[in-house]
Amino acid sequence: MEYLRHVHYHETDQMGVVHHSNYVKWMEEARVEFLNKVGITYKEMEEKGIISPVVSINVNYKSPAHFDDDIIIKLWVKRYNGSKIEFSYEMKNKETDQIVCEAESLHCFIKDNKIITLRREYVNYHNEFMKYVS
Amino acid sequence: MEYLRHVHYHETDQMGVVHHSNYVKWMEEARVEFLNKVGITYKEMEEKGIISPVVSINVNYKSPAHFDDDIIIKLWVKRYNGSKIEFSYEMKNKETDQIVCEAESLHCFIKDNKIITLRREYVNYHNEFMKYVS
Amino acid sequence: MEYLRHVHYHETDQMGVVHHSNYVKWMEEARVEFLNKVGITYKEMEEKGIISPVVSINVNYKSPAHFDDDIIIKLWVKRYNGSKIEFSYEMKNKETDQIVCEAESLHCFIKDNKIITLRREYVNYHNEFMKYVS
Amino acid sequence: MEYLRHVHYHETDQMGVVHHSNYVKWMEEARVEFLNKVGITYKEMEEKGIISPVVSINVNYKSPAHFDDDIIIKLWVKRYNGSKIEFSYEMKNKETDQIVCEAESLHCFIKDNKIITLRREYVNYHNEFMKYVS
Repeated sequence: MEYLRHVHYHETDQMGVVHHSNYVKWMEEARVEFLNKVGITYKEMEEKGIISPVVSINVNYKSPAHFDDDIIIKLWVKRYNGSKIEFSYEMKNKETDQIVCEAESLHCFIKDNKIITLRREYVNYHNEFMKYVS
Repeated sequence: MEYLRHVHYHETDQMGVVHHSNYVKWMEEARVEFLNKVGITYKEMEEKGIISPVVSINVNYKSPAHFDDDIIIKLWVKRYNGSKIEFSYEMKNKETDQIVCEAESLHCFIKDNKIITLRREYVNYHNEFMKYVS
Repeated sequence: MEYLRHVHYHETDQMGVVHHSNYVKWMEEARVEFLNKVGITYKEMEEKGIISPVVSINVNYKSPAHFDDDIIIKLWVKRYNGSKIEFSYEMKNKETDQIVCEAESLHCFIKDNKIITLRREYVNYHNEFMKYVS
Repeated sequence: MEYLRHVHYHETDQMGVVHHSNYVKWMEEARVEFLNKVGITYKEMEEKGIISPVVSINVNYKSPAHFDDDIIIKLWVKRYNGSKIEFSYEMKNKETDQIVCEAESLHCFIKDNKIITLRREYVNYHNEFMKYVS
């Protein structure tokens, strides 16, 4: 899946580049977009009482993004075992094709304050995710 | 009430100054601090199901704040009529005494999706606020 | 000019709605988009050493925006006198047509730490802005 | 070094907890505080034309932080080789002593768009950092 992201002025810092905390937000945006496309909208999940918190992130900054850049964020499922899902991200400057950032994020699924296993408890979500395991 | 705020690096933008959206966040922080001091904690209000959304804000930027500055935010109740409260803010650079920003924010009180009147429904909150009407 | 903005998860707060500071960021995004369309890109202005800081903002929150909403931000030049420009904003929920927010922002132009008059010093920018004075 | 951080309302998201991108900002704040205490202020470094961008971060979210919590962020130098520095962070809820987050960040030093070696080019900075290598 690819998510195109335009860089906003308010995302820069006084180094003249995008502040590194924003890439973490872009990862989330790409994830939500992915889920929307897959047909598992995050909003719908939350309405069912399922939340999918971030367990860990890992971000490697390769070259800075600048105000007004267009960034292509490629996202794919790196691992999924029925209860945890890991996404990989590659962010490229659309114009120069330069890699901006490579990242990963790991997520679990929680309902009523308990970790749940989609494979058993939400089979339709499970089957959907299985299609994207590379 | 005075709230001291240190300026963080991530609050700057590529103009080399604090991005103007952050002052709106500082206003909120000062408000929460004020309520804590007054004994009406925002957290406690939310636990009772009362939220106090922002109806409007008005911010006048006088001189830019910079990374690592200490900003003194003076806050006072400008108006309070039992159902709406308006705060005024004056932000000064602690070292230079220069005015950074002057602002106002207007708030109502909502419970169960309805606007409530503290004067009638939460008399103890009402009495507390009345003490601070200037 | 209209700017379409999708609401991100990271823009919500624990009230379950978009945090009010984000609207200020959206105003900036709409402004940048407007300038890009007009042919006065903000990036180009900054490269010429001209910055356009926010002098004041005024935001009226009408109804909350939620995660995953599409917001249409209408922006127009309210006033322009050759040295200061004021923008008006109307934000609507795309689906429900409900007004989310109405706002204004006032800006000056600065070069080498001095306020400049576009009408005299940057006639081409001036002429461009004049076309949009309503 | 320990950095105490109060959680602001605007840092929460609709899950009712601190949005995970904010921890990355807190790491920066703790780093800046550390450098200030060490006597190598980030501001001074930037004035000398040295910037210290983030090369990578690694964040493990252990338990959520909430609005109004006090978080103690312990920071120490994990590795330093004269040209790159790695910080470790442990964030705890001050009241409950529960671990909120564990993280690491790797940084290089850049001047005039080139990676520099503090050990050779800024010996006083180098000596300062060496004291904190655990």
